[in-house]
Amino acid sequence: MSAILLDGKALSLKLQAELKAEIERLKAETGKVPRFMNLVIGQDASAASYGKSQKRVAENVGIDYQFSYLPHGITQKELLDQIHMLDQDPDIHGIMLHKPVPEGIDFQQAVNAIGADKDLEGMNIANLGKLMLGKTKIFPCTPAGAMALLESSGVDIAGKDAVIVGRSEIVGKPIQLMLLEKNATVTVCHSGTSKAGRLIEHVKRADVLIVAMGKPGFIKGEWVKEGAVVIDVGINEVNGKITGDVEFDEAQKRAAFITPVPGGVGPVTAVMLMRNGIEMFKQRSGKS
Amino acid sequence: MSAILLDGKALSLKLQAELKAEIERLKAETGKVPRFMNLVIGQDASAASYGKSQKRVAENVGIDYQFSYLPHGITQKELLDQIHMLDQDPDIHGIMLHKPVPEGIDFQQAVNAIGADKDLEGMNIANLGKLMLGKTKIFPCTPAGAMALLESSGVDIAGKDAVIVGRSEIVGKPIQLMLLEKNATVTVCHSGTSKAGRLIEHVKRADVLIVAMGKPGFIKGEWVKEGAVVIDVGINEVNGKITGDVEFDEAQKRAAFITPVPGGVGPVTAVMLMRNGIEMFKQRSGKS
Repeated sequence: MSAILLDGKALSLKLQAELKAEIERLKAETGKVPRFMNLVIGQDASAASYGKSQKRVAENVGIDYQFSYLPHGITQKELLDQIHMLDQDPDIHGIMLHKPVPEGIDFQQAVNAIGADKDLEGMNIANLGKLMLGKTKIFPCTPAGAMALLESSGVDIAGKDAVIVGRSEIVGKPIQLMLLEKNATVTVCHSGTSKAGRLIEHVKRADVLIVAMGKPGFIKGEWVKEGAVVIDVGINEVNGKITGDVEFDEAQKRAAFITPVPGGVGPVTAVMLMRNGIEMFKQRSGKS
Repeated sequence: MSAILLDGKALSLKLQAELKAEIERLKAETGKVPRFMNLVIGQDASAASYGKSQKRVAENVGIDYQFSYLPHGITQKELLDQIHMLDQDPDIHGIMLHKPVPEGIDFQQAVNAIGADKDLEGMNIANLGKLMLGKTKIFPCTPAGAMALLESSGVDIAGKDAVIVGRSEIVGKPIQLMLLEKNATVTVCHSGTSKAGRLIEHVKRADVLIVAMGKPGFIKGEWVKEGAVVIDVGINEVNGKITGDVEFDEAQKRAAFITPVPGGVGPVTAVMLMRNGIEMFKQRSGKS
């Protein structure tokens, strides 16, 4: 058996076409297009690959997407003032803070200062709290991209065993909640599981395997269950090449569906950022 | 084998003694004792058993704990106004809204209107978001009580398989995060697991089993793994008797530790409410 590839680039283009149609409809109804601001401290974000791909996706779908460059020596207070100003500007519909930030800047505090209705990345505490309550259309972008790829497989995951490897607040914890919403039985594994010598048994029973460890080839291909759906969120650079957390060659012999790295979750993530922003724009303009 | 009982009443008394000493210290340092307000809409909370036990625990530890009775026909807006007023009152250090609320009242919206630093039950979106980020000392009370009982067993759960049955936002979802913080490998099961015929296999492998379904005797004793720690959060009334979600008689033959119902998680929950309030009082008075 050779797995079907879950093609992130193709899915990204499909989703972009949907968002473009939605923006056109919103523009016709409200006379406006969403305007998003990416705050960048002391570096050239357009050079950073995530920033570039965001800008490209935004322009593709018709969003007005700008970078705002802040000086490297900006204080936390000045940053918060800047965020408050943008937060009160009715012509700005979405805000994000580019990572990494310089030392001395509290990233999460700054993100929490963005209003929940302008938080493009879905990572402020109010949006994370809403995710806990299961009542939200705003999702952290990387897990949202992983879920979109999983759903593109067409596999019904209700009642299936989903195993997540990695418990970060940007991937493992939110995707756990998103998988529960889809009625999967969800297990979260992490370094403690591995240390106890119990990681393999959990990976082996996974109908859906989501890996987000940031360790190249950490999950051996032979651990993958026959017929599983494998979503590899890892993006690691090894000898100048981008590679995932799963041993792809061996895993794709066993899985039914698998994401490539690169070309899997990565390309979908930026689209999810735009989807969050459009959803918030719709909610604010009463079109949701 | 016969399991050791995890005695909620005894743990509650022990924790109350600790909180009492803390209140005395805070009183000596600040000249104040924490003052909490329980908003009750259209009913006599002192008659309700949870309200009564809260009041008793509060008095025991030296907290000024009051009920505020609001008329049954109160509107959402009037309720929110009332909450805002208390939230701005520097002499009120903790607020909660008694459940159930009458139809037409949006409980969660009201709880979200309580400041994150006065939210006794730890259930507003900001506090739930902080729980997602793993940076909080404020926890929803029922899972906090369950965790305290689990910890009282002395069993080191790092690397162990913890299985939760039930995915509610008041128990299953928060306790999942709390168990991850303690390095357990955590699985959340629910009605979808059961429907797929896969509940038993998950329960059988649980080193730590936490059940919060609200279905009397739903978990059969013979499913329990030898030597497991069983925390039964269920409180069900059957023929006038209170009973848990786990078949106790059979389960206690196999488990190493088990909570009784009644007398398990229930008595600890009210103490956790006070602990949240004391923690917020300390944070506000700079004594944390």
